[in-house]
Amino acid sequence: MIKVGIVGGTGYSGVELLRLLAQHSGVELTAITSRKEAGMAVADLFPSLRGRIGLTFSDPANAPLTSCDVVFFATPNGVAMGEARSLVEAGVRIVDISADFRIRDVGEWEKWYRMKHAAPELVAEAVYGLPEVNRAAISKARVVANPGCYPTAVQLGFLPLIEANVVDLDHLIADAKSGVSGAGRKAETHILFSEASDNFAAYGVPGHRHWPEILQGLAQATGKRVGLTFVPHLAPMIRGIHATLYARITGDVDFQALYESRYATEPFVDVLPPGRHPDTRSVRAANVCRIAVHRPHDGDMLVVLAVIDNLVKGAAGQAVQNMNLMFGMDETTGLVQLPVIP
Amino acid sequence: MIKVGIVGGTGYSGVELLRLLAQHSGVELTAITSRKEAGMAVADLFPSLRGRIGLTFSDPANAPLTSCDVVFFATPNGVAMGEARSLVEAGVRIVDISADFRIRDVGEWEKWYRMKHAAPELVAEAVYGLPEVNRAAISKARVVANPGCYPTAVQLGFLPLIEANVVDLDHLIADAKSGVSGAGRKAETHILFSEASDNFAAYGVPGHRHWPEILQGLAQATGKRVGLTFVPHLAPMIRGIHATLYARITGDVDFQALYESRYATEPFVDVLPPGRHPDTRSVRAANVCRIAVHRPHDGDMLVVLAVIDNLVKGAAGQAVQNMNLMFGMDETTGLVQLPVIP
Amino acid sequence: MIKVGIVGGTGYSGVELLRLLAQHSGVELTAITSRKEAGMAVADLFPSLRGRIGLTFSDPANAPLTSCDVVFFATPNGVAMGEARSLVEAGVRIVDISADFRIRDVGEWEKWYRMKHAAPELVAEAVYGLPEVNRAAISKARVVANPGCYPTAVQLGFLPLIEANVVDLDHLIADAKSGVSGAGRKAETHILFSEASDNFAAYGVPGHRHWPEILQGLAQATGKRVGLTFVPHLAPMIRGIHATLYARITGDVDFQALYESRYATEPFVDVLPPGRHPDTRSVRAANVCRIAVHRPHDGDMLVVLAVIDNLVKGAAGQAVQNMNLMFGMDETTGLVQLPVIP
Amino acid sequence: MIKVGIVGGTGYSGVELLRLLAQHSGVELTAITSRKEAGMAVADLFPSLRGRIGLTFSDPANAPLTSCDVVFFATPNGVAMGEARSLVEAGVRIVDISADFRIRDVGEWEKWYRMKHAAPELVAEAVYGLPEVNRAAISKARVVANPGCYPTAVQLGFLPLIEANVVDLDHLIADAKSGVSGAGRKAETHILFSEASDNFAAYGVPGHRHWPEILQGLAQATGKRVGLTFVPHLAPMIRGIHATLYARITGDVDFQALYESRYATEPFVDVLPPGRHPDTRSVRAANVCRIAVHRPHDGDMLVVLAVIDNLVKGAAGQAVQNMNLMFGMDETTGLVQLPVIP
Repeated sequence: MIKVGIVGGTGYSGVELLRLLAQHSGVELTAITSRKEAGMAVADLFPSLRGRIGLTFSDPANAPLTSCDVVFFATPNGVAMGEARSLVEAGVRIVDISADFRIRDVGEWEKWYRMKHAAPELVAEAVYGLPEVNRAAISKARVVANPGCYPTAVQLGFLPLIEANVVDLDHLIADAKSGVSGAGRKAETHILFSEASDNFAAYGVPGHRHWPEILQGLAQATGKRVGLTFVPHLAPMIRGIHATLYARITGDVDFQALYESRYATEPFVDVLPPGRHPDTRSVRAANVCRIAVHRPHDGDMLVVLAVIDNLVKGAAGQAVQNMNLMFGMDETTGLVQLPVIP
Repeated sequence: MIKVGIVGGTGYSGVELLRLLAQHSGVELTAITSRKEAGMAVADLFPSLRGRIGLTFSDPANAPLTSCDVVFFATPNGVAMGEARSLVEAGVRIVDISADFRIRDVGEWEKWYRMKHAAPELVAEAVYGLPEVNRAAISKARVVANPGCYPTAVQLGFLPLIEANVVDLDHLIADAKSGVSGAGRKAETHILFSEASDNFAAYGVPGHRHWPEILQGLAQATGKRVGLTFVPHLAPMIRGIHATLYARITGDVDFQALYESRYATEPFVDVLPPGRHPDTRSVRAANVCRIAVHRPHDGDMLVVLAVIDNLVKGAAGQAVQNMNLMFGMDETTGLVQLPVIP
Repeated sequence: MIKVGIVGGTGYSGVELLRLLAQHSGVELTAITSRKEAGMAVADLFPSLRGRIGLTFSDPANAPLTSCDVVFFATPNGVAMGEARSLVEAGVRIVDISADFRIRDVGEWEKWYRMKHAAPELVAEAVYGLPEVNRAAISKARVVANPGCYPTAVQLGFLPLIEANVVDLDHLIADAKSGVSGAGRKAETHILFSEASDNFAAYGVPGHRHWPEILQGLAQATGKRVGLTFVPHLAPMIRGIHATLYARITGDVDFQALYESRYATEPFVDVLPPGRHPDTRSVRAANVCRIAVHRPHDGDMLVVLAVIDNLVKGAAGQAVQNMNLMFGMDETTGLVQLPVIP
Repeated sequence: MIKVGIVGGTGYSGVELLRLLAQHSGVELTAITSRKEAGMAVADLFPSLRGRIGLTFSDPANAPLTSCDVVFFATPNGVAMGEARSLVEAGVRIVDISADFRIRDVGEWEKWYRMKHAAPELVAEAVYGLPEVNRAAISKARVVANPGCYPTAVQLGFLPLIEANVVDLDHLIADAKSGVSGAGRKAETHILFSEASDNFAAYGVPGHRHWPEILQGLAQATGKRVGLTFVPHLAPMIRGIHATLYARITGDVDFQALYESRYATEPFVDVLPPGRHPDTRSVRAANVCRIAVHRPHDGDMLVVLAVIDNLVKGAAGQAVQNMNLMFGMDETTGLVQLPVIP
């Protein structure tokens, strides 16, 4: 049994991680920290876990994290980079669900996240945790940077096109819609029920932190810089990301076959038959990305639809998938729950 | 492995049963019928099941139901009573999720369900499938009548009081709120998104079919007729029942202790500590009933709050629980999924 | 034209008041204050008002409130009581949408609101602004205490029964459900979209501030203390209150006729025909209370269903109705907008 | 007072038309038809109209439509084309909210709507009712084809760019999101609350009937055929359309100034200041289109955000606006209700 610690377990990624790990056959949950809720039973904060999670939140200062095999950071950005080094030196492997180790260009990271990076050397070492791209490296990594929710959906949707070099790489468009849980469990006015319900809006059009992360991933796949317009939207639902991707066709191939072939052996990517439209509930609470490929009116614009649950394949589920790889377990362990519909 | 058949798998109870059975270690899904969708792959209708359920809907006429050990009816009312006898005679055991076998008084049933009962002798034999009351009888039953969603929540909420005879049994009140999935997957105007969303209303105040079912259960617990006012409401959420129960106190006991003691060994009933208010999401997608007991202002009115997921403990989950009992499996097999929050 | 000021215009009662007053033919909006947003154009905070409200939030210290004919307080509890006296002395009349002047027993108020009252003499003078009860007094009042949202629905629902003395006044039950906007526009975790959506729960069962307010109103109607169990619930919708009221019948009258007669001349109370169930959307964004009366199974328990929009008849709309009465305008001025469905 | 008739008043466009006309000072509602609900009081079907609309649904055969000045068709596609001619010949002017007269190329219409057109000569005569383009022609029209909801938002969003010829007209992209009421008040499974809630999906990517309508409008503005990829999505909200438009910049102008100038005198189009993101609730229940223009990272891709309420500016409100123009009334009569937030 792998000993697992969680730093920052009171947000949505944290509680989703708890849900998944409590049903994982290969782990022993050893410690969970929260400065604010230290001393409180986890199941008092989240009654859904009553009878299943006996742990109490520890103060980060006292938590037995160094005796863990792996520690997940489900913290706000800027925390993991401060605490990772000492854990790594103690032999603990790390999966950071926050953004601290995602951007390899530290200057770029500092510009978007508006703080000085505390551990640039770990950025250099960290492996970007998208198993569909970096499976081998993840399995050996000491630090895994778990991808953002939008970047997971957008990259999985674009990758076959980019790798095959069959679309105009200078004018990619990702029109992405996210459920409100993507904004976290923070007391902020704009994500109140009465503000976000029965409402729809774009945000961050001038610039969003996930844009450089996506650019980095796509550039790595093609070997050069790409052009991407990325527009995120807030949709009145709890979970789910729907990425609608547009790319101008430059090379004529069988796009359906391209996608099916690229993801044929992937356990968590499902390419739908031609003509289908994936809905976000078809992946609700499950570690799956479903993708459909359309070429409307046989024109020169390809439309790709990709859906994930932002808290599972977009956060905690992918983190568990990465942990499974890191410790040589079957990649799907603890991740076989079916989507919950309706 | 137990061979399982499902009659009528295209509604919400049916698809929820599929979700649970696909994750159940002791069953082999053998047949699923739908007159309307015969020939269609189950996963084409419900993409959430892609890669996990390989079955195709069979026409009821050809389905190999008699070779099953157990058949679930997830059909509209009036279907199971017509098909149950031949299955029972073939040695197949039955869990009916519809209402056909719930009311022991056939005349009363016919009044509320407005049709002639086709199998009164099976009504006499059927066991009401509320494990917290009838566990022993269920384990030996050939036909189990799976309780309605409201009746499950209301009975579990009232039973300790009734059995202990500490409240006025002539003036019980159950103010119950249900998510819209309780109305089924039927194309009806009043449950359209644009009608039911951002809206709240009572319905069926003059009379609702679950009223006689609840009355029957409570009367059985006390040995005499009780008086109950039952007001169901439609709440703008997909899943969940919240029953708010009112009873005038006639005998002064420690109500918290009464509830904790009554349900101490129940795997799927969770009595909350004093002062808590269960929310429906704390049982979302899980086979749990959570209950809290309040005595406001130390007055003579007791308030009991009980929540379930109407599709799990209120339908498909309880059906699996009953199946587990009928076949001597651990009662919790396949039912340990944690609630999905947020 | 009446000169109107608003103190605290950034919450939901405030912005709803702006919506209504902008369409009111008899008023001139003169000042609106917000300590936090001083200097910001109202339409910058609420783009729905662009082109229609030209005002800028003033700092409360500088706002020309004393030159107004009437000032509305749409503030958190505890603000109006500190500022009302000087305005009243300057000849300004007041409609307080907060709770500061609702409870006549100052000690009781201080117990529930956990602060010392700053203006007990104005409590004594203030008129409780439920026009269906206090119309004449309101028209002459200097200070009107606008009722709470739950108290409006519950009192309008119970009043005919209480005044006619035909039910057991010791065991009244009000099971009330509110949309989330009733909790205000405050950054609090429990009313986040991801917490409150697709969820349902009771709260405040041990005690809620609206309980003494309702008790006071019902007691005034009958001349003696009544007994009431009040259970509020949070429903996943933006607007709306649905009160389900239970009373044991002691005097046999034609209840439908009783209600129709009591509210025959009321412009904003609509008694539905027998057998109907009002839904909250039928009053969405309108200053109406709809009521239905049921006697299930001809038993001895009466069930009354009452719905309002908590922000209109439960707050800003009733405040405008009170203003109309205070200034001798037609009571319905500015309040004839039709409900918005779907 | 203009005498108004409505054919087909039981859908969402119909009831929204009733809400608006009931508050319109210049009309007298004379007849409303519904084959299915003939004889029923309108306010019995829609309790929100109780006390405000006294009409009863008439059978279409007997309704006094020819004595009306104007008749609105709020019918399914294919009805208006059969009934319009006789009304026009009787001197009645027509606003068709359905799609019968929107596409000038009858063959194209027949292909998309899968029926033979019954009145091609009226198609030739009909004026496309987008006042921001065709105001003068509308004022003299006998038949106005009220635009579709998506086409209204997409055209208003693209028009300034097209007219100024400053973007690549061969590769326009419209990623549009609609509330569920856009699908109408029809009993269909996919728009049930339990299907559409907490869910998001694209639909109609291979082809949607609003695509040729938008193409026609944009082509008319530029004088030649344009290329457009149009992807509609179903969002879990009742009302609202959010169109996110992408166009590659070919001519460098001040885009903010271009939009402000184009719509400077339009009463119902609001161009937001730079940097803003319109949300659909900012136009909820109001006849307004709000638009924002972005050029992310100063690149060569322009992003335009346009929101409307699909039932108001996207249907009934625009229909009333057209009627106002046709009868020489102030264009804003009856359309000044403020958006309802929250």
